[in-house]
Amino acid sequence: MADALVVFTPSGKRGRFPLGTSLLDAGRALGVDIDGVCGGRAICGRCQVEVGEGAFAKHGITSSGTHVEERTAVELRFDARKGIAPGRRLSCQARLSGDVVVDVPPDSQVHKQLVRKRADARVIELDPVLRPYYVEVDQPDMHRARGDFERVEEALASQWGLGHVTIDLKTLKALQAKLRKGEWKLTVMVHEGHRIIATRAGFRPDAYGIAVDIGSTTIAAHLCDLTTGAIVASAGVMNPQIRFGEDLMSRISYVMMNPGGDRQMTMAVRETLTAMVGQLAAEARIDTNDIFEIVFVGNPVMHHLLLGINPVELGGAPFALATDSAMELWASEIDMTALNDSARVYVLPCIAGHVGADCAGVILSESPHRQDEMMLIVDVGTNAEIVLGNRGVLLACSSPTGPAFEGAQLSSGQRAAPGAIERVRIDKETLEPRFRIIGSDLWSDHEAFAHVARGTGITGICGSGIIEVIGEMYLAGIIGQDGVIDGALAARSPRVVPDGRTFAYVLHQGEQEIRITQNDVRAIQLAKAALYAGCRLLMDRLAIDRVDRIVLAGAFGSHIDPLYAVLLGLVPDCPLEKVQSGGNAAGTGARIALLNRASRREIETVVKTIEKVETAVEPRFQEHFVAAMAIPHKTAPTPNLAAAVTLPPAKIASREGEGRGGRRRRGA
Amino acid sequence: MADALVVFTPSGKRGRFPLGTSLLDAGRALGVDIDGVCGGRAICGRCQVEVGEGAFAKHGITSSGTHVEERTAVELRFDARKGIAPGRRLSCQARLSGDVVVDVPPDSQVHKQLVRKRADARVIELDPVLRPYYVEVDQPDMHRARGDFERVEEALASQWGLGHVTIDLKTLKALQAKLRKGEWKLTVMVHEGHRIIATRAGFRPDAYGIAVDIGSTTIAAHLCDLTTGAIVASAGVMNPQIRFGEDLMSRISYVMMNPGGDRQMTMAVRETLTAMVGQLAAEARIDTNDIFEIVFVGNPVMHHLLLGINPVELGGAPFALATDSAMELWASEIDMTALNDSARVYVLPCIAGHVGADCAGVILSESPHRQDEMMLIVDVGTNAEIVLGNRGVLLACSSPTGPAFEGAQLSSGQRAAPGAIERVRIDKETLEPRFRIIGSDLWSDHEAFAHVARGTGITGICGSGIIEVIGEMYLAGIIGQDGVIDGALAARSPRVVPDGRTFAYVLHQGEQEIRITQNDVRAIQLAKAALYAGCRLLMDRLAIDRVDRIVLAGAFGSHIDPLYAVLLGLVPDCPLEKVQSGGNAAGTGARIALLNRASRREIETVVKTIEKVETAVEPRFQEHFVAAMAIPHKTAPTPNLAAAVTLPPAKIASREGEGRGGRRRRGA
Repeated sequence: MADALVVFTPSGKRGRFPLGTSLLDAGRALGVDIDGVCGGRAICGRCQVEVGEGAFAKHGITSSGTHVEERTAVELRFDARKGIAPGRRLSCQARLSGDVVVDVPPDSQVHKQLVRKRADARVIELDPVLRPYYVEVDQPDMHRARGDFERVEEALASQWGLGHVTIDLKTLKALQAKLRKGEWKLTVMVHEGHRIIATRAGFRPDAYGIAVDIGSTTIAAHLCDLTTGAIVASAGVMNPQIRFGEDLMSRISYVMMNPGGDRQMTMAVRETLTAMVGQLAAEARIDTNDIFEIVFVGNPVMHHLLLGINPVELGGAPFALATDSAMELWASEIDMTALNDSARVYVLPCIAGHVGADCAGVILSESPHRQDEMMLIVDVGTNAEIVLGNRGVLLACSSPTGPAFEGAQLSSGQRAAPGAIERVRIDKETLEPRFRIIGSDLWSDHEAFAHVARGTGITGICGSGIIEVIGEMYLAGIIGQDGVIDGALAARSPRVVPDGRTFAYVLHQGEQEIRITQNDVRAIQLAKAALYAGCRLLMDRLAIDRVDRIVLAGAFGSHIDPLYAVLLGLVPDCPLEKVQSGGNAAGTGARIALLNRASRREIETVVKTIEKVETAVEPRFQEHFVAAMAIPHKTAPTPNLAAAVTLPPAKIASREGEGRGGRRRRGA
Repeated sequence: MADALVVFTPSGKRGRFPLGTSLLDAGRALGVDIDGVCGGRAICGRCQVEVGEGAFAKHGITSSGTHVEERTAVELRFDARKGIAPGRRLSCQARLSGDVVVDVPPDSQVHKQLVRKRADARVIELDPVLRPYYVEVDQPDMHRARGDFERVEEALASQWGLGHVTIDLKTLKALQAKLRKGEWKLTVMVHEGHRIIATRAGFRPDAYGIAVDIGSTTIAAHLCDLTTGAIVASAGVMNPQIRFGEDLMSRISYVMMNPGGDRQMTMAVRETLTAMVGQLAAEARIDTNDIFEIVFVGNPVMHHLLLGINPVELGGAPFALATDSAMELWASEIDMTALNDSARVYVLPCIAGHVGADCAGVILSESPHRQDEMMLIVDVGTNAEIVLGNRGVLLACSSPTGPAFEGAQLSSGQRAAPGAIERVRIDKETLEPRFRIIGSDLWSDHEAFAHVARGTGITGICGSGIIEVIGEMYLAGIIGQDGVIDGALAARSPRVVPDGRTFAYVLHQGEQEIRITQNDVRAIQLAKAALYAGCRLLMDRLAIDRVDRIVLAGAFGSHIDPLYAVLLGLVPDCPLEKVQSGGNAAGTGARIALLNRASRREIETVVKTIEKVETAVEPRFQEHFVAAMAIPHKTAPTPNLAAAVTLPPAKIASREGEGRGGRRRRGA
């Protein structure tokens, strides 16, 4: 027979090809998704497949034996040099000698799907904006005078099917020498399918990108391998702008009081980012020159300061953004010179003066616009960004929750750091507490806890801890719906103590006493009322009373136990199993925009459809706010809440989603 | 009647419009080309028209009187402030009150046609790549959160019909302050119809651009008003790279011998360009910030050095260009920081390793591709670029003529400068010469000449002078077809003198004797043979023996008398009236690319169709070269040549085209 049947799995695509056809050519002809950056030259090894031996009745293949030609010298050389796993073949080298079933393993697919920890989270399909292309370029020829660049363009067209490409002067300048050094073999880094941003002599397809979430308090960055999608290093540091002001308004005030203050803050954040790039590259042991792309999310003030735009307009009505469109730049335009010379920057679009590119990142990560369920997403920081909607409609607002959720301005509050109390239970009979601190999985009533606590100390209470302790105080009757600490209980428990004209609850007695004062409770009531009022405002717009699903995102949002969030009324009622932690959804959104080209156009389109609600000018906001001061709010806890509260600690921990994973280990 | 007839001249477009319609609106609706950058707000004054009074039988208008409403307060205010010529109206303010004929004068047309000195030269239609748009922008509104940039985009769309526009970060950063300073009135500089490169508070439409021809020896630049097309200042300076090497090969050698030499030369030319920009702006009394565009032409080595690309590859076969495409850049990418921050650069495409962007400029200026006549264009410098073709076919090559045509390496040669002999006549009987020097219109036999010569001195002989003297020596029989100076004539004339083993002709006896040696004749023979051989090579390709028209371009080419060019056989035979001077055609091409957007796409397309002929590897080149050493060459002068030679000097002078006009005055 002159041809043979090839069946590719898992796609099921099949066709007949002449004997001697390479499996790669057959696959490509059928539109099978097989990776490869060397153009079938047995250099990259990315096109590996598993060739089924013997008969496959269900595919109609009955003959036994291997029906692919023996390994070629080229393939053997590749194996000797880089290794090919047993049972695998380079599909560019393996040629048909009979009917065969060929499996394309996930790591050999171009459009790899990246698994996220949360089962319900959006799948990230790898299709980065930057792709390496290996080409063999014609040498210059006097009889056919064409420039070096034009011959590269021809090679990209004939060897990869690319259309018109452009090149910037910086990259062009370096091209001559690289072509000659590589003896007319070149790896070309192509951005957005048309822009050559770098070239390298020979075969060198390494390409990395960084996704960055610039928060007011912390900056989180992930270094990703653009060819696999894997996170190869992560870093989180304090935002150096903190020295100019703790929160956004104080930073804007700093600019108003100090001409040039915006430039100082711009320089500060850029310097820190530059240091982070170095740190990430060192951790992953890669060359910073191999980093070609950096994606940013951040709230509007962080966005403007990163870009070097004066943020003062964002400090007062009408809160005018300089731009609400996505930005695409050279990294050098924002002084990010630690990357490749020709690295590009993508900044997600902002939504409104209070609702920034971080919120766009959250939307990309949680993708309410792709779902039927009515979804409420709250990203809680010093401001809370709130998104409500589904496939048909999308609303967003920002609500001024203040810093209490982050542990600030509380008597014993602190940032989430080792030694901070993060989990609390109060015995309803004795009113005695037990708790856990960040850095350990032991509860304070465990015999080994004292040993652990000696290491970090018990230094304060962080955002998730304060939510739990107030929730538990409510469940134990220490505070009522109005939030007032019941002084009468002082007679029953030494934990309830007078504190000026009010009372306090002593959570921990030690070198450093940790107590919850009446003011602390009030601060949390104000914060949660603001959050709840924002949510309600959006729900009012849609005239709905309940949502199908709630995602709690952001540093605080993703660490609180959804149980207590609902119990205290931070968010509207919702079946507990439908309240999830979204982790750093803004950062995940940045990572999606880094790894998937289409997602950029997606979020740019989606943000244009968002209805922005300005809480500051909505009369009903105040109304909702006042009503929501009560605990939980005007509605009683749903029946299943009481049951959930009795769950043993281990089970509650297991409900936590993507956690502070990188920074500490969790037990069962 | 509720409407009226409007007839626009010179276009003849006509239509009926309701009474009260502004003439501008009526004109625009009919597609009449009326200028205006303020959007009909009586600010710019560019939409002025002349309104015909009374009856116009041929247009069917019979009623007498003025049929346009009286001048409005706004129009009177504009008149008081800036003046409106008598008989003119602002078409945005003048409203229809009856049938009327409206003339749109040339200066009120958007697509003004710029007149060139040569009647046969391509008309330049003004349609620059950069246009100012005046807009009134919506103020920010909390209830409709849109960024500043997006509101500008909306204004451009609604007030000017522009589609999607982009903005770079630098320009975006400045936008906020400008919008507020101008109280939401803004002039937006839009590049290529979509890229905002600058904004200004209020109405400020001034925009200038520079066209630059970087020659190996001199750099010539014209500053143009982009809104009128007028040249407002010109400058010419020596190319500072001369200190690294006189000609291209010696500059390339310098780079090969001195690592970093290319960067030195790049810096040198950029510094000189920066100084020129300042000089041009000062001369025209404009702000350098108002210069938004700069267009370059130059040979491949100048092209690469300007862009900072190492030119060494151009020094030897296969003469590989880094790119042969046109380049579009930010001026800052090539350190042109003396212009507006966001100024753009356009560099015309190169054609081959020896045929550069200067030749592309020549083609744009002379436009053989738009003509039916078979046209030969020679741009003579140290190398000659030769273009042959018409609407159907286009060939180009470069020929190594050497520096003799520029007066270099001749015994009395010098560059064209005051004091240099540029015109020569020899009396056939007496062999006595008479001549003219640059800087004066008097012949040396005029009684006042001695007085003139005392000013500048008689310092040498320039390229056009050497061509004439050798031509005249041939006509007078001092040299024969072989170029040998006839020593026997020494007996008849004291002008012919022994000079070593050969003879020389003494052109001027004075403090500094100026003579034409046998070596000088040989040098010119070699140069003209190279030029002629290049021309023939291209003609061979097309299998043609004659051309319809010849244009002599470049510093040398445009100053030689076509008569002597044909007589000596620099170029193939052609009726004298069909041999013209093209002036600095390369520089004119740069100016066309500066002023007419479509011309860029035109030349980019045309150069791709050019067949490049590499003289260095063409066996027939040598053959032609040897044959062309004879004077004139293998063909005798055509009959009309003899007649032409007897023309009085004044008539020859009048045949000169665009001359060194800027540098010296010419008489009748």
